[in-house]
Amino acid sequence: MLVLNRHPSGRHFLQIPGPSNVPDRVLRAIDHPTIDHRGPEFGELGRAVLAGMQDIFQTSGPVIIYPASGTGAWEAALVNTLSPGDRVLMAETGHFATLWRRLAARLGLEVQFLEGDWRHGVDPARIEAALRADPGIAAVCVVHNETSTGVTSDIPAVRAAIDRAGHGALLMVDTISSLGSIDYRHEEWRVDVSVSGSQKGLMLPPGLSFNAISARALARAEQARLPRAYWDWRDMLAVNEKGYFPYTPATNLLYGLHEAIAMLKAEGLPAVFARHQRHAEATRAAVRAWGLEILCQEANGHSPVLTTVMMPEGYSADRLRAVVLERFDMSLGQGLGKLADKVFRIGHLGHFNDLTLCGTLAGVEMGLSLLGVPHREGGMAAVMQRLARI
Amino acid sequence: MLVLNRHPSGRHFLQIPGPSNVPDRVLRAIDHPTIDHRGPEFGELGRAVLAGMQDIFQTSGPVIIYPASGTGAWEAALVNTLSPGDRVLMAETGHFATLWRRLAARLGLEVQFLEGDWRHGVDPARIEAALRADPGIAAVCVVHNETSTGVTSDIPAVRAAIDRAGHGALLMVDTISSLGSIDYRHEEWRVDVSVSGSQKGLMLPPGLSFNAISARALARAEQARLPRAYWDWRDMLAVNEKGYFPYTPATNLLYGLHEAIAMLKAEGLPAVFARHQRHAEATRAAVRAWGLEILCQEANGHSPVLTTVMMPEGYSADRLRAVVLERFDMSLGQGLGKLADKVFRIGHLGHFNDLTLCGTLAGVEMGLSLLGVPHREGGMAAVMQRLARI
Amino acid sequence: MLVLNRHPSGRHFLQIPGPSNVPDRVLRAIDHPTIDHRGPEFGELGRAVLAGMQDIFQTSGPVIIYPASGTGAWEAALVNTLSPGDRVLMAETGHFATLWRRLAARLGLEVQFLEGDWRHGVDPARIEAALRADPGIAAVCVVHNETSTGVTSDIPAVRAAIDRAGHGALLMVDTISSLGSIDYRHEEWRVDVSVSGSQKGLMLPPGLSFNAISARALARAEQARLPRAYWDWRDMLAVNEKGYFPYTPATNLLYGLHEAIAMLKAEGLPAVFARHQRHAEATRAAVRAWGLEILCQEANGHSPVLTTVMMPEGYSADRLRAVVLERFDMSLGQGLGKLADKVFRIGHLGHFNDLTLCGTLAGVEMGLSLLGVPHREGGMAAVMQRLARI
Amino acid sequence: MLVLNRHPSGRHFLQIPGPSNVPDRVLRAIDHPTIDHRGPEFGELGRAVLAGMQDIFQTSGPVIIYPASGTGAWEAALVNTLSPGDRVLMAETGHFATLWRRLAARLGLEVQFLEGDWRHGVDPARIEAALRADPGIAAVCVVHNETSTGVTSDIPAVRAAIDRAGHGALLMVDTISSLGSIDYRHEEWRVDVSVSGSQKGLMLPPGLSFNAISARALARAEQARLPRAYWDWRDMLAVNEKGYFPYTPATNLLYGLHEAIAMLKAEGLPAVFARHQRHAEATRAAVRAWGLEILCQEANGHSPVLTTVMMPEGYSADRLRAVVLERFDMSLGQGLGKLADKVFRIGHLGHFNDLTLCGTLAGVEMGLSLLGVPHREGGMAAVMQRLARI
Repeated sequence: MLVLNRHPSGRHFLQIPGPSNVPDRVLRAIDHPTIDHRGPEFGELGRAVLAGMQDIFQTSGPVIIYPASGTGAWEAALVNTLSPGDRVLMAETGHFATLWRRLAARLGLEVQFLEGDWRHGVDPARIEAALRADPGIAAVCVVHNETSTGVTSDIPAVRAAIDRAGHGALLMVDTISSLGSIDYRHEEWRVDVSVSGSQKGLMLPPGLSFNAISARALARAEQARLPRAYWDWRDMLAVNEKGYFPYTPATNLLYGLHEAIAMLKAEGLPAVFARHQRHAEATRAAVRAWGLEILCQEANGHSPVLTTVMMPEGYSADRLRAVVLERFDMSLGQGLGKLADKVFRIGHLGHFNDLTLCGTLAGVEMGLSLLGVPHREGGMAAVMQRLARI
Repeated sequence: MLVLNRHPSGRHFLQIPGPSNVPDRVLRAIDHPTIDHRGPEFGELGRAVLAGMQDIFQTSGPVIIYPASGTGAWEAALVNTLSPGDRVLMAETGHFATLWRRLAARLGLEVQFLEGDWRHGVDPARIEAALRADPGIAAVCVVHNETSTGVTSDIPAVRAAIDRAGHGALLMVDTISSLGSIDYRHEEWRVDVSVSGSQKGLMLPPGLSFNAISARALARAEQARLPRAYWDWRDMLAVNEKGYFPYTPATNLLYGLHEAIAMLKAEGLPAVFARHQRHAEATRAAVRAWGLEILCQEANGHSPVLTTVMMPEGYSADRLRAVVLERFDMSLGQGLGKLADKVFRIGHLGHFNDLTLCGTLAGVEMGLSLLGVPHREGGMAAVMQRLARI
Repeated sequence: MLVLNRHPSGRHFLQIPGPSNVPDRVLRAIDHPTIDHRGPEFGELGRAVLAGMQDIFQTSGPVIIYPASGTGAWEAALVNTLSPGDRVLMAETGHFATLWRRLAARLGLEVQFLEGDWRHGVDPARIEAALRADPGIAAVCVVHNETSTGVTSDIPAVRAAIDRAGHGALLMVDTISSLGSIDYRHEEWRVDVSVSGSQKGLMLPPGLSFNAISARALARAEQARLPRAYWDWRDMLAVNEKGYFPYTPATNLLYGLHEAIAMLKAEGLPAVFARHQRHAEATRAAVRAWGLEILCQEANGHSPVLTTVMMPEGYSADRLRAVVLERFDMSLGQGLGKLADKVFRIGHLGHFNDLTLCGTLAGVEMGLSLLGVPHREGGMAAVMQRLARI
Repeated sequence: MLVLNRHPSGRHFLQIPGPSNVPDRVLRAIDHPTIDHRGPEFGELGRAVLAGMQDIFQTSGPVIIYPASGTGAWEAALVNTLSPGDRVLMAETGHFATLWRRLAARLGLEVQFLEGDWRHGVDPARIEAALRADPGIAAVCVVHNETSTGVTSDIPAVRAAIDRAGHGALLMVDTISSLGSIDYRHEEWRVDVSVSGSQKGLMLPPGLSFNAISARALARAEQARLPRAYWDWRDMLAVNEKGYFPYTPATNLLYGLHEAIAMLKAEGLPAVFARHQRHAEATRAAVRAWGLEILCQEANGHSPVLTTVMMPEGYSADRLRAVVLERFDMSLGQGLGKLADKVFRIGHLGHFNDLTLCGTLAGVEMGLSLLGVPHREGGMAAVMQRLARI
């Protein structure tokens, strides 16, 4: 058997912003024997997880479950609704917005990319302006929680901007690192396609991804002309009703999804969201006490699922991460794209609790000390003060 | 927790021709905690499974691992090598060949489909003739083992046919239900793209799929103009060398793949292939003893991984399957497409042994009796005689 | 990791009469993280399994759970109720009765051992006679289901014999291989101490054992003078009420016990008992069809959990078992004590179903053939006929 | 399925001084299917764990493995070597020494109990004096690491005291909470019987216990007259050589033992011992920084596996534990016997690492704050300083 952890003792701290720590209950669910994906038990399982995902997306409309990573669900959102040469409006909130844009371009779409500094969320005013300037834009695509920066965008405000412009563009939102961790309301916010993945707030291993679909998006799928097969919603919807899938689903991951949905419901989504907010606040308190700078500059945009910390000039974030991994068996998120080596990201999402956060931040503080990174003391005191409050 | 088996006692017999029974060792591997897919341990894992899959495909060329079902790997093979309107030659060996053809058509390819009766393998002579008639054909796509019929096609003969025609078409082969069960040699047979999935001979749950690629196919990928992003080989190959993936891989299924490859190597591929042949022979001995007809009419084409049995006129295969499931807790494969209700399929692949085969065939025989399907006795005697021999 | 099965493919058939095949649900339960055995969650677990075991023993009186094998529960029954030199009446039903007797003698008890031929159950008339002859006998100890012979004794008849003799001896019954498989009623049958273990009908790994106790036995414990500490009921009962144990319990096996009790209740004890009867009948039908002799000669005493088969003169049962293990990856029970090499035992208990029985018996028949043991054909036909009936 | 943790999110911190946190690798090992305990694979397993345990005990002599808790191994040590009325010398180091004494008395031994204040280890001078005063003492029984107090006794010094007295008493040592965490040398220190359990340094669930035996102890077993059966070494040794056991062993826990031994050897015993020392030092640094008192007053006796902290007068340790469990999902050890509610115990043993220690101590500090227990700040700073050093 492959030994997955080189550290001889103790549990690894997986504090990247996803994949998040998978609960034992989910791991145990996943390792049940695979069943016939066309048999009656499977139908029950399929209906249960499809219905459960509607609750998680807060929608009464259809949800599609793909045996694929989140990147696949990005592609699915586009190929089901758009045609070659369609114009799409995207906002540069960070690395993942940039990757989604690149993917759209590869599929033959024309992307208008509202440049950003990777420290702010989507600016609704610029969305509105861009839409007013181009009535032919087919879709607005934004990222709810930028996993590369730790900045959350205000989706209702984007919705309002589209409405103010009186524009018919579809609204597509990447909720890969927000779903199940940050309040997200597909239906109430009138999102057309929500894209998500299994390995963050849903507390699963990677390998499943999702599209939640509005009626308008579904109608658009009838005219969309980008070639599609694997991702085609229509094949899915034709058999999902009875709990089945048009091709072999990732059965064992669906077992885990069933368990994860049960856990999220048992805790209650509002409690889940509050928990993430609380851990994020405590983390920011620590970072500020250390005197380090948080990447996010959007007042109301601090992410509840991760905190991105800027390294002081002249210090390598990747060396810090290497020291923390080597010495304390903790994985921190790396800086992506243009942030490489300049920031590190602390994941505090998913299956997580107060003491794991304390261990996590202690590991960061010890890493800073070991590397001689200038910082003030008091980070842990700030965290404990916050956590002992409520 | 979802209870996945309605039968109160004993282990389910999952005798569909895939997903096959997943070994305990693989299930236990899958439920290890998810790790950082950008960390050093993951790199080791990634390199190990990529190298291992080369051995399984019997190739020294690159293998791509997708977090996706086999259907995705079909799509990947086409979009990486072809351009809109390209002409593709396919052979109607059964339901899955028909689905692959439909998928190709949806992607904008023009498919010439050599009709078949679903009881024979690919006819190399017709391939040769079709190629001679159309020098512009871009690819020949065939299914090695038709999971819907239990007929295996002779891939070296198809290769020879292409060579005899002196034609430059790529050769693509679906090995979804043959890889790891039936001898298959990507490199020696000069296949350009081999397509496979995790849930059959590889003994994994569904959720991973594969492309093995020739140098020629890889070169073709440079000019191919079908839009592609998720499936793009080039992004994969750029980072696979160090054991990483361009987007989040299905980490826990890769743990299982690592274990499954170790098991196949420990048994030895020739022994694995011989074992499947032996179980298939024993199964056919039983079916013939019962006096039932085997769907396959290709002398050398009987599948080592499944046997498709025709129901006598006037009897419903689906009722038989329902009785066997209800009474004996065994899942048999259903008739697909035009074979619906007319045949049932017995899977004898993957993690399997003699006594499980005996239980399987006893279940079929008792089902026949319960339903009053005319048949002779002696099936079990024939099986036991065969199995007790070597 | 230790590889536990040398056979490269397929699942082992563990057809010894215990440990029986452990259900996946129980294995998964057992591998949950260990918790504080003095914390509130543990109390809940403890109360649940203690109450559940009362249902399984069919008693409203106390049940003791030991972290120990069944042998320990034998010892516990004796040391809690008896004093040095006490006279105990036992019946030689087979190897395990003989072992229990040896254990009693070692503890300083004087055992009157009613000799037997290992082919019959306890003879109530001899029990009655022995009791009438010796009013000072402190306890009658019998084995409900002799795992070494496959003979079940009639406990209500033994109870009636004691009553007819008007004797005050305690009645102790070993239910190690019957509990959870054969109808057993601790309270209704007025048994004083029932002894059991986890690894048979309870479908758990070995490591837990049990005493169910009558009020009379409990009263007797106050005067009993055999030294005792680990096994002392009183320490257990003092803290069991709140779900705790006087020393560290085998927490993870208790998780499994919780799950196993849930499974037995879901199926329903009457259905569980009927299932074992049915599989035993089918097994005997096969053995008779082969023309082999069943060890049990007690008309109503054929065990529902195992069948002991006599090898024809001149053939080694151990060679048969070795061939079956080597060739078919099935473990059969060996002959114990004076039956060594003369019989083999087929376990058909616990987590078991029709097709596993078919595989099991096919393995035996093939083994007979391979070894050239004279036998008739038709065993499998007889089994299938029986199983297809109801 | 029983849900074992009432806290909806995150992993429980099991920081009692045993059962310790069980590594995922061990849990996964335990959940493999049970095998025939008389088959060849079992023999291999048995030999491997018996040999492995010799390495862990640092002895070339026999080790006995019982399917039982540590309490059973206490009993086994006594009943195998002593006779009714034998005099035994014990030292009151704390609650567990007191329990062992009670157990000895129950078995009919006469115990001389050297009184202690539960804050010091065994005093070798008093042992020597007592032996000189009574040449008839049959055994000296001491606890290596008192789990109730966090005080470790100097076993070589006890050995030397016996030697100085020129006394023939056997030396028996309880290593239940030291083995696999604190350097312990059965052979070099000439211990006659070492008693241990699975759920502490061995990182297993409870359910296995051990005796390591000297040649002298084994010889003594021939004359010992306390009744014994389950615990009898001779039955064990007769079959252990081939890897088997005289009654059904706790097979699945042995799988875990095999894995745990492999993990301890991979890390290396000296590294394991150093790790425990380091975590204990860091914990004491925190407690001192808080200004709280450590129970242990033996200069060289601070336990590497747990630290017992005295609550300031007027504050309830049990309320602190309740708050910490409720708010932070951490189990701390309670005060036992006369220390009830006056101390709490922090376990830092077994499968453990730096960040888990940081989380643990942060939980304690927050608990102190929430309860208004007077303490100074700076505990976490002290811990981090220590851990960041080497």
